[in-house]
Amino acid sequence: MAKLVVLYKQPADKAKFDAHYTNVHIPLGKKIPGVRKFEVSQGPVNTPAGPSPYHLVAVLEFDSADALVKGLGTPDGKAAAGDLANFAQAGVDLLIFDTRTV
Amino acid sequence: MAKLVVLYKQPADKAKFDAHYTNVHIPLGKKIPGVRKFEVSQGPVNTPAGPSPYHLVAVLEFDSADALVKGLGTPDGKAAAGDLANFAQAGVDLLIFDTRTV
Repeated sequence: MAKLVVLYKQPADKAKFDAHYTNVHIPLGKKIPGVRKFEVSQGPVNTPAGPSPYHLVAVLEFDSADALVKGLGTPDGKAAAGDLANFAQAGVDLLIFDTRTV
Repeated sequence: MAKLVVLYKQPADKAKFDAHYTNVHIPLGKKIPGVRKFEVSQGPVNTPAGPSPYHLVAVLEFDSADALVKGLGTPDGKAAAGDLANFAQAGVDLLIFDTRTV
């Protein structure tokens, strides 16, 4: 399996971010070919010491990193990635990796 | 459900890091009370543009963020957290959040 972890920095307007994320970005993300599971943080993203720099974390699962990169390269993948500019101006980090369960 | 995402920065000595992680840290992590799933990145952690600042990402699943924090507060949880100082000197970020599947 593989994961795409998306780390969204704290936005200037959280309510606006959340509305766009829920109403526009999640539907676009679910269309990315090869997505097996799409999980989103609910409530605060904390560290053991308190609040983190992140407002929201998304974890998407694919069969492999190759399938993930291929999915992002399709028109639906590009539409989801292109939408980031519409609401994630505060910054967003995308991490792609294969996984093993230990 | 809830996740603990652990982001390890690139270590000075990758082989030493990997040996400690596999032989010492994974067994300690698996002992944290309440861990339902323990996934570890395999191979490089990339961004869409190329290599990321991270050498390894671990994703641990718990029933809830409360269960996660409670597990980390037990002697076994503290032993796993305390072990970070033995191999993660390059830096490590821990993110804790409840999740929903969308």
